[in-house]
Amino acid sequence: MTDVKHMKWWGWGVDGVGFHYEDKPGFAPFVKYAVGLDLLTATRAGEPSFSDLKVGKSNATAAFVKTLTGVVGAKHVTTDDMARVVHTYGKSIRDLMRVRGNLILRSPDVVVYPADEAEVQKIVDAAVAANAVIIPFGGGSNIGGSLEPMPEEKRTIVSLDLGRLSKVIDIDTDSGLARIQAGAQGPDLEAQLNAQGWTIGHFPDSFTHSTIGGWVATRSSGMQSDKYGDIADIARGLRVVRPGGALVLRPLPSTSSGPSVREMILGSEGRLGVITEVTAQVHRIPAKRDVYAYFFPNWEAGIAAMQEISESDAAPSITRISDARETGFSLATSKDRKGLDKFMAGTLLPWIMSVAWGKKNLDQICLSFIGYEGSPSHAKRQRKLVEKIIRKHKGLTIIGTGPGVLYDQKKFDTPYLRDFLLDMGAAGDVSETAAPWSKLNQVHDAAYAAAQGAYDQIGIQGWIMSHMSHSYHSGACLYFTFAFVFDKDPIAEYDVVKKAIQQSFVDNDATISHHHGVGLEHSPWLSEDISPEGVKIMAGLFASSDANDNFNPGKILPRPKVTTPATRKPAAKKAPVARKPASKK
Amino acid sequence: MTDVKHMKWWGWGVDGVGFHYEDKPGFAPFVKYAVGLDLLTATRAGEPSFSDLKVGKSNATAAFVKTLTGVVGAKHVTTDDMARVVHTYGKSIRDLMRVRGNLILRSPDVVVYPADEAEVQKIVDAAVAANAVIIPFGGGSNIGGSLEPMPEEKRTIVSLDLGRLSKVIDIDTDSGLARIQAGAQGPDLEAQLNAQGWTIGHFPDSFTHSTIGGWVATRSSGMQSDKYGDIADIARGLRVVRPGGALVLRPLPSTSSGPSVREMILGSEGRLGVITEVTAQVHRIPAKRDVYAYFFPNWEAGIAAMQEISESDAAPSITRISDARETGFSLATSKDRKGLDKFMAGTLLPWIMSVAWGKKNLDQICLSFIGYEGSPSHAKRQRKLVEKIIRKHKGLTIIGTGPGVLYDQKKFDTPYLRDFLLDMGAAGDVSETAAPWSKLNQVHDAAYAAAQGAYDQIGIQGWIMSHMSHSYHSGACLYFTFAFVFDKDPIAEYDVVKKAIQQSFVDNDATISHHHGVGLEHSPWLSEDISPEGVKIMAGLFASSDANDNFNPGKILPRPKVTTPATRKPAAKKAPVARKPASKK
Repeated sequence: MTDVKHMKWWGWGVDGVGFHYEDKPGFAPFVKYAVGLDLLTATRAGEPSFSDLKVGKSNATAAFVKTLTGVVGAKHVTTDDMARVVHTYGKSIRDLMRVRGNLILRSPDVVVYPADEAEVQKIVDAAVAANAVIIPFGGGSNIGGSLEPMPEEKRTIVSLDLGRLSKVIDIDTDSGLARIQAGAQGPDLEAQLNAQGWTIGHFPDSFTHSTIGGWVATRSSGMQSDKYGDIADIARGLRVVRPGGALVLRPLPSTSSGPSVREMILGSEGRLGVITEVTAQVHRIPAKRDVYAYFFPNWEAGIAAMQEISESDAAPSITRISDARETGFSLATSKDRKGLDKFMAGTLLPWIMSVAWGKKNLDQICLSFIGYEGSPSHAKRQRKLVEKIIRKHKGLTIIGTGPGVLYDQKKFDTPYLRDFLLDMGAAGDVSETAAPWSKLNQVHDAAYAAAQGAYDQIGIQGWIMSHMSHSYHSGACLYFTFAFVFDKDPIAEYDVVKKAIQQSFVDNDATISHHHGVGLEHSPWLSEDISPEGVKIMAGLFASSDANDNFNPGKILPRPKVTTPATRKPAAKKAPVARKPASKK
Repeated sequence: MTDVKHMKWWGWGVDGVGFHYEDKPGFAPFVKYAVGLDLLTATRAGEPSFSDLKVGKSNATAAFVKTLTGVVGAKHVTTDDMARVVHTYGKSIRDLMRVRGNLILRSPDVVVYPADEAEVQKIVDAAVAANAVIIPFGGGSNIGGSLEPMPEEKRTIVSLDLGRLSKVIDIDTDSGLARIQAGAQGPDLEAQLNAQGWTIGHFPDSFTHSTIGGWVATRSSGMQSDKYGDIADIARGLRVVRPGGALVLRPLPSTSSGPSVREMILGSEGRLGVITEVTAQVHRIPAKRDVYAYFFPNWEAGIAAMQEISESDAAPSITRISDARETGFSLATSKDRKGLDKFMAGTLLPWIMSVAWGKKNLDQICLSFIGYEGSPSHAKRQRKLVEKIIRKHKGLTIIGTGPGVLYDQKKFDTPYLRDFLLDMGAAGDVSETAAPWSKLNQVHDAAYAAAQGAYDQIGIQGWIMSHMSHSYHSGACLYFTFAFVFDKDPIAEYDVVKKAIQQSFVDNDATISHHHGVGLEHSPWLSEDISPEGVKIMAGLFASSDANDNFNPGKILPRPKVTTPATRKPAAKKAPVARKPASKK
């Protein structure tokens, strides 16, 4: 059996780690307030049992398995049920609901773990020759439905796990460029870089269980992207295995060599081949890395400050502000209020606000985190520039190291909370988007109204909160978290809420996703996002690049019906079934 | 006749403006030294006569012209020879040699000037219905061969001139986003923005005669791109007319909606449709904009400093350094050495260098320009950070405003010099590239060796010089200028030199172009740049998006032979002639 480690088959993270609220006294009352769930009386579901799961039989022929075994060795090929279930879904709330609900319509037929690019090439060539389907698999953290096989797929499905390609191959220290194998997970690659004094500066929420190949495949952003750029900025060179050979894009700082093939691979979610290596921009670890917290009297003031910071000479590494509801949530999920935290939230803050803003009403305040990195003098100057703007918008600085620690403490915790809520009968999920600054408040309000409308439609009490997580010169990312106690049909109820929020994005000039990709989850809105002509161009790209739909078919765009487009050769041996978008089920 | 103004049919700029050297006493001796041309004895060719030119007859049918006239009105359609010649070529040295040499193999058959996007749509639909060819035309400044019709083209060729779409439609002042029509030329759009307190911050060498649509179509960079970004960063939203409808990409700060269609249009050179509108990032005009000059003892020291600046906390708006040869050229082409300039170059500089570097030898020194923009305190701090690094690498600061003025004075002059040299029997041209920092010196030396090898092969005296024009975290752009006195066959001799330099780029891990696009000029090396699989993906994009090759066929990639790719429907009514790359003629 392979040594590649995976997350729990039924949830986030590894066995033995989970969310608990014993040390968060404000959490239970908050949940009661937000979604009407009484944690003290609710029954927590036990861990699901794998033996209860109905898993379809692998259709991989012995000959095909033998071919794969010939490439990677017997240890690194499996048709084992557990491996196939682990590789069936990512970790979206829909995925968790389905795996807990024994809803596995189609699993990969075989999981293979190549050791290097040469083996990936042989697997791809063998799979294409056999007209099999190839679904690349990194850390399995995807929440867009990019990993699951299409239920109607009759061909053999290969989950190509990149877990053994986990090395930082080398660092060009003159250029700040590191060659990193696609299957390297966040903590592992960052440790390899740190050991030589470098950092990639890319820290998505999924960092602990996602890979650099997955970041590229889904156009990931990280917490410090304001400084280091999104993965589209970071990934300068790429190697992508395709039938018969590898696409090789050498690391270039910039190029005008026609339409950007690099930017076609970015976000391609396996549809254009298997990413095996990324040459990434890396940076020397900065001398100073501070995260400071601020309070704003309300959301509009905070967003106005963030916009002004983005337009200013300042260049902070993080700009983040939670709206009033998320601020309430953050305070409620803080660990036991001792010392500074308690003093801040319980005593000092109300007093400051009554002086600064002439009111004691806390329900509009918004918590913001701003990061500063670089030399000590640079970090200090950035902070000075930023805080001048913050003061102009009536923001208050919270002194001390507590808030930054709070930020670091919580940053990778959220996914565990989702599993806990599911145990208790509640669904918690996220939708994120980006829009120009002039549209942000409108997008924010529309998403709130859409969620509330959906809750009303279902007849349940629901919750939504939001923060602005990344800023750019012309706009920002808004990240929404929503939760509700489900009733009879968790997935159907989730669909109503998720669809309403996504629709509100495209209706208000925001995008379907800022950094979670498209997959199946956001695909129904792609045409409204990039216009029908944009979909045509993209469909042509996929069809011309992968005529027989061997590479992760159905993701980003539905499989075209065999009659269209006219210029496309019908795929061989393919069932003439158009994909039903998952979110419409 | 339309009111749209064009450059001279035979050269750069408008009538009455040209290069002269009466006020540049060092110029003639420099030319003698560099390429062996004695300006005092050489005969200057007279202005070419249009009546000498052989222009093929337009094949546009009366019915088709009538259709176009019905769309835009008689004033805005022409089959006039002068208009057709103006729209035949861009302004590359090859273009100028051909138009001066009466080598016009194929011209557009009709030139049409739509007033707005609706008219562009009608023209495109009519042209596609008639299976005509559409070549979008902006300012006509292209130097990659992106504008010329393919000689073998039998269909009617429409030059679609965007000159009447020249307005800044509106500015979203909250977001720093301006909607700008694609045909707006640099000075015009910048004036419209400036009038409202904004700047686009994009100043390519071609600025005075190029359009924002052309910048997008060729992936342009400007002189202040270190601060404002390349056009790929600036162009957030796009409207592109395609058969039957417009592609509409709304302005988004960032998005993860699959492979980037925006980044497919960028650099597409008309092959995916007609760009009609760009929503561009714009910035408030900074309070301070300074350009300072520095001298480095040699190229390696200067490049090391530029690299360290790019890695530092500093964020200058311009980082530029000329190598020793280009520094010599810059000093030689300076206006009459009065006051500070004369003192600097003739007295102070040698003295400083003898003290600072212990030698009086000027032939290794390199002139650098660094720009600082923002608030006065920000510009000052950036300068302080940069100059600390410059001192570390033994660079010297030149005090005073003279150098910045020199930079501004010369920045848009270069193209005029090229016409002057042609008049005198010499060819001057440019090749530019980008590579990681670790490869820059190697790329620089290889291009020098390649050019010298080419000159030796032809048996002529030639010249090459270079500057680094843009820097990024992981690398920089190198910009080479080369010149020689041609002998019997100017184009064939030019090809030998140009090909040698381009080959040296791809052989040394540099790209075929940093910001001049591909066109026909760089197309032969595309496969070596983005690998054969990259070419396959791009070819599939073009073929699937434009099945009958109506949009600027043959550019970026040669027209595929009708037998390949297998999945592609053969184009209707197309001559089965594969393009011969222009540079191989």
